Amino acid sequence: MPRTDALRPFHRPHLPKPPMTAHASRTAELAAFAAGLRLKDIPPAVLRRTEDLLVDWFGSAVAGHRARPVASIARFALAMGPATGPGEVIARRASTSPHAAAMINAAASHVAEQDDVHNGSVFHPATVVFPPALAVAQAIGASGQELLLACVAGYEVGIRVGEFLGRTHYKVFHTTGTAGTLAAAAAVGRLLRLDAAQMRDALGSAGTQSAGLWEFLRTAADSKQLHTAHAAGAGLMAAYLAKDGFTGAADILQGPQGMAAGMTQDARPESLTDGLGSRWATAETSFKYHACCRHTHPAADALLQVMQQQQLQAQDLARVVAHVHQGAIDVLGPVLQPATVHQSKFSMGTVLALVAQYGQAGLGEFDAHFLSAATQALRDKVEMALDAEVDSAYPRRWIGKVTVHTRDGRVLNGRVDEPKGDPGNSLSRAEISAKALRLADHGGVSSAAMQRALESLWQLAQWPVVGRLLALEPQA
Amino acid sequence: MPRTDALRPFHRPHLPKPPMTAHASRTAELAAFAAGLRLKDIPPAVLRRTEDLLVDWFGSAVAGHRARPVASIARFALAMGPATGPGEVIARRASTSPHAAAMINAAASHVAEQDDVHNGSVFHPATVVFPPALAVAQAIGASGQELLLACVAGYEVGIRVGEFLGRTHYKVFHTTGTAGTLAAAAAVGRLLRLDAAQMRDALGSAGTQSAGLWEFLRTAADSKQLHTAHAAGAGLMAAYLAKDGFTGAADILQGPQGMAAGMTQDARPESLTDGLGSRWATAETSFKYHACCRHTHPAADALLQVMQQQQLQAQDLARVVAHVHQGAIDVLGPVLQPATVHQSKFSMGTVLALVAQYGQAGLGEFDAHFLSAATQALRDKVEMALDAEVDSAYPRRWIGKVTVHTRDGRVLNGRVDEPKGDPGNSLSRAEISAKALRLADHGGVSSAAMQRALESLWQLAQWPVVGRLLALEPQA
Repeated sequence: MPRTDALRPFHRPHLPKPPMTAHASRTAELAAFAAGLRLKDIPPAVLRRTEDLLVDWFGSAVAGHRARPVASIARFALAMGPATGPGEVIARRASTSPHAAAMINAAASHVAEQDDVHNGSVFHPATVVFPPALAVAQAIGASGQELLLACVAGYEVGIRVGEFLGRTHYKVFHTTGTAGTLAAAAAVGRLLRLDAAQMRDALGSAGTQSAGLWEFLRTAADSKQLHTAHAAGAGLMAAYLAKDGFTGAADILQGPQGMAAGMTQDARPESLTDGLGSRWATAETSFKYHACCRHTHPAADALLQVMQQQQLQAQDLARVVAHVHQGAIDVLGPVLQPATVHQSKFSMGTVLALVAQYGQAGLGEFDAHFLSAATQALRDKVEMALDAEVDSAYPRRWIGKVTVHTRDGRVLNGRVDEPKGDPGNSLSRAEISAKALRLADHGGVSSAAMQRALESLWQLAQWPVVGRLLALEPQA
Repeated sequence: MPRTDALRPFHRPHLPKPPMTAHASRTAELAAFAAGLRLKDIPPAVLRRTEDLLVDWFGSAVAGHRARPVASIARFALAMGPATGPGEVIARRASTSPHAAAMINAAASHVAEQDDVHNGSVFHPATVVFPPALAVAQAIGASGQELLLACVAGYEVGIRVGEFLGRTHYKVFHTTGTAGTLAAAAAVGRLLRLDAAQMRDALGSAGTQSAGLWEFLRTAADSKQLHTAHAAGAGLMAAYLAKDGFTGAADILQGPQGMAAGMTQDARPESLTDGLGSRWATAETSFKYHACCRHTHPAADALLQVMQQQQLQAQDLARVVAHVHQGAIDVLGPVLQPATVHQSKFSMGTVLALVAQYGQAGLGEFDAHFLSAATQALRDKVEMALDAEVDSAYPRRWIGKVTVHTRDGRVLNGRVDEPKGDPGNSLSRAEISAKALRLADHGGVSSAAMQRALESLWQLAQWPVVGRLLALEPQA
């Protein structure tokens, strides 16, 4: 599997813009772009990156399928949906309607906290784009290339809507739920070959169902997976309805009683359309390498760099200072003695302790070692310090800096300019496959079955018809 | 069928309040009320009024089932749901899962514009409460009394949430869609016998899916029925998930990242809990008598009063002045020569012309006569004038006042203090049945079938198990 090259910045300024009148809204322009997108418009490297994102997403879907909140959503959707159908319920011996399958898979792929993220929009595209697109592709017999094309449309729309909704929106709303509804509609709409007007209807029907509030975080409730399930289901429905002639608001994004009017105070209209067809937001999406809060990743990578360059072992560390942005201190600062696996993913000390011992902080390392004596001892040697350079670069760039004091008295500095998984420091296909295999193990799926699925999935662009992604072994 | 008496005000101050700690939220208190509500807590007249509301809703569901947007939603839900199931799809030869049936029936009952309204919350409870409650009652074999009890829980929660969200919410959001999601969850949650904590989870999962924007009005798009379908489906799902242990935000209404934080600027917290168990918001709900914009109803009733008292015929009218509040002028003022049936429902002249000719402005009168020569001639004799008394009483009271100039030179004044259908001027059961029969005719359902259904439905409280409401004749 060849390593894909870094893709940012990615400009094709010669691409013709879709025709529009002077009075057309940005919503209409974005809809026309999504409806009119062709494979030949998309740079091959962006399509290859979309394959990477899809394989990476697949690992998360497999990993999360047994989690309690996901199992609840699956029980509901399978009870309310048909007992069989074209939509694969990933890693379960079940299939159902595209609508029910999309909801279940969207819930499953947002629970291991290993799915992708677009930094600028603070939006997780994979979990709301791939599940509905896959389910509909399986239902209508679309080709692998058609599926990839539709997913690019979903990513481009969703990321732009997320950027448009801005920071005041994100303070209260879970952008992956809200913008995700439109992302799902765009992807499914492209698969259903909506024309520009129908796609605008689909965005209208999606946006008027757009929802998801952060309030659940306060008591660690289960809503996060409900948000992605809802976005996938409502977006898919919006696209099917549009295909059937059901109309939606003409300007759900910027209209005086639309999303911006009701759900944000700092909308950024230019984000919706600037660079359409030349800037590929899809390729700006980051992979998550470590299985923990993104705010810990830059320091983790900087520590790994020092340890590898200096051939240090965990026992060599006397003290580690992570030089961070203020946001990291705000989120991670209170977590000094984590009591649960989930909490430990927000502990800078735990993350650096796992990285120092195992070279990575994956699901397995957290589950097995987050509270071991060795991890706790290392954890308490870690501190955070606000760094002016790191802070001023954030959130555009997530710089990682650490100072390591060794037992033998050395003081060593590590630095990464982009954390592992960001577009300029992306994962190779071998790394993506390895991550997916680890995720499958976490989800209780055998290496052999996952290996076969991955080998096939890397060839998606050659599939004449999208079939089942994962074939489980017969039950014992 | 006995006439039900006016129910407002309705106080039972001796009812014990549910136990709560000093730190419990109003959300928790409202949830505990809905979960703990018992038949014996509810005054018999409120239960009888709930039967009235249910029968009235049933007429609207039958009337709307063939409308184009409803047919689209039905095609989607039936394609994605199971081919059979316990949930009745009203007036169709179909049944499916409770989830799919709830969505279809909720869409159907909000299209004829004849479903009920709660003035203070500007919320239409029936269309989002009865469809999910009926579908779940049919699925679990609940009794008629259990269904009524659950619907009271849904009304009480939904109306209070609508009042809580306030006027700035209503400016952008369609409260029937947003508050409706919680209303549906409360009704279904009561049927599923959620405990207080589970009911709070259900409200959390409902509120985080709450959606619906007015933007669709600008281009007369189809979203209105999507909003009720969404509220019914998402609310039902929230309740089932809660029963399965899926948690929701503890304070979705007032929490710092909850609905009030994200979706309104003038939340009224006291509305959520004041008078719980003593004030019955259910019984404050108004029936719609005329099939047109509510702003026309007070003047229409005042005109009817004058004509009946003075035994006038339509041809006796030379000039009619409707004395109205400013809101009526804002909404109806621009509509002088309506071109479509829908537009004519916002024409004061057309409404008064139909009332003068036919004694009512129902669906049939609009369809057949909205643009007849006689209607147009009468229409142009009507004018509106701002009235200080009417305007200052609004929206608490909707006073109707007209001045009628007759061809023989008399000047007559008419006045109603509450329009027909408001709690103080309610419909008799005979009038509700007659309205439902007219609605059935509009929906293409035979009088005989509807008559049988109504006779049975008025006995709902005696049903040991809720079965199918409408039995259609065999197809020819």
